[in-house]
This record gives sequence, structure tokens and C-alpha cells, in this order.
Amino acid sequence: MSNGSKVIKFACYRWQGIRLNEYKNPGPDFRGVTRQTLMGDGAGEDDVAFVTRYFEVEPDGYSTLEQHRHPHSVVVLRGRGQVILGYDTYDVEPFDCVYVAPGTVHQFRAGAAEPLGFLCTVDRERDRPEPVTRRERGRRKGSS
Amino acid sequence: MSNGSKVIKFACYRWQGIRLNEYKNPGPDFRGVTRQTLMGDGAGEDDVAFVTRYFEVEPDGYSTLEQHRHPHSVVVLRGRGQVILGYDTYDVEPFDCVYVAPGTVHQFRAGAAEPLGFLCTVDRERDRPEPVTRRERGRRKGSS
Repeated sequence: MSNGSKVIKFACYRWQGIRLNEYKNPGPDFRGVTRQTLMGDGAGEDDVAFVTRYFEVEPDGYSTLEQHRHPHSVVVLRGRGQVILGYDTYDVEPFDCVYVAPGTVHQFRAGAAEPLGFLCTVDRERDRPEPVTRRERGRRKGSS
Repeated sequence: MSNGSKVIKFACYRWQGIRLNEYKNPGPDFRGVTRQTLMGDGAGEDDVAFVTRYFEVEPDGYSTLEQHRHPHSVVVLRGRGQVILGYDTYDVEPFDCVYVAPGTVHQFRAGAAEPLGFLCTVDRERDRPEPVTRRERGRRKGSS
């Protein structure tokens, strides 16, 4: 297709022509997370108001415990794990959805047996995530 | 979660608390399509700039051949089928992505064996789809 429409073929949790990236710059607050940006951020895709990414967390890995103003729309594709939403923890498995509302402290954690893979769609224009330590989360709870 | 964050559990291509809707008002230009709006259009979700829907096309069914200015970001979850993008037809299967650029005439068609199910994310604010007949598509091709 000359106007930018396309099919991006899937195989083994990689997508044709899509780069496998680090989740973010290395840091102590996450473990074993990769990111592939599937749609919305490529050449000629400026008309798309949102970006569709696929994250994969290795067994026993986890994403940063963080919060931000932009929401997340998540659909689990692979594996089993848990999501922390504020002070609650939920089990998740394939095709469960997770809506992370603005300002909710959240983290995705893979189980021990297999990677946890999920689509995560966000606004193209969005604020930077703010890491939250478990100690801070406890203090915020105590002061509220 | 009191602030709107939530996990929406999946079972058998339905999601807990999510209504199964008709694709659109009945018409002759599609067959056997249902729609479930998963995230972005619920109470308290006004901050989300996009809406995540799941469409399912029954075996041998098809969506409307149509075009519009807003783009589609599609991830196939279930079954095998074909997508028409302009004058090209592509086979699709689970976890293939389809980016439908603004203005591209498109249609999703399920194979004979099983339903074709896919996530389709769109801008919350978007234009109405315009149906295109196969005859019109041919005329447009001939005149270009």
C-alpha cells in the first residue's frame, strides 16, 4: 500500500520490521522488560493520536512501579502475571484487559513460568512516567 | 480501584461486564459482525483519547467495505481471514497487526473455519465511516 496502510506479520512474539528495544534506559527499578512499538509512531503515521506498543516481561521480571497523568489501555497477549494498581494486586492472563487511569501507581510483574507479554496503548502526546518507590507508596498511603 | 483503574477479565471472547453489541445498524453491506467496547468509552474514561474495541466476524462473514479519515490500529486475536486495503488483499492470523491509514478503503473478512476476532483502536473523536461499493471502488480505480 502506497498510502501507509500495511499488515505487520507476527511470528514468535516479534513483528516483521519492528525493532526490539529496551524498555527504557537501564535502571534498578525494573527487570527484564523489552518494548516493540507496533503502530502509531512510524513514518507517515502522524495522523494517529495514539501509539500501540508490545511489552514483554521475562519470567520473574517486572516493570517500573510508576505513575503518570496519561492513561494506559492494556491487553495481555502472553503468559501469566500480576498487575499492581494502587494498593491492589490482580492476577492477569491472556486477553484480560487492564485500564490504568491517570495518576494510578502501577506495575506489571511476570510469573515464574513464562514471559508476560501485553499490548499497551497510550496517547502519542503524553507526560513522562514518575517512578514511585515502595517506601513512597507506603508514606503516601499513611498520610492520606 | 476507586479512581477508575480496573482489570477486565476475559473468558471465551467475552469480557466481564462488557456488552456484546451489533457491529452497526443492520445493513446489506456486512455479515455476522459483533462489537465489544473494552476501554476508553466508559464512565470516568474521558481522559482517554482513544477507544479499544474487539470485533468478531463469524465464519464467512465480513465487515463493511468502507473508508474514513481516522486511522485504525488493529491486532488480530482469533482465527484466520483476510483484510482488504485499497486494491490489495492480505491474509491475517493471530497477532498480525494491520494499520489502516486515513482514507484507505478496507474490509475484514473471516475464513470459513472459524471466527475472525481482532482489537481495533480508534481516536475517540472521529469521522463517520463512508461505505464504498465494489462498483465504486472499480470506478475510482479506473478514473485514477
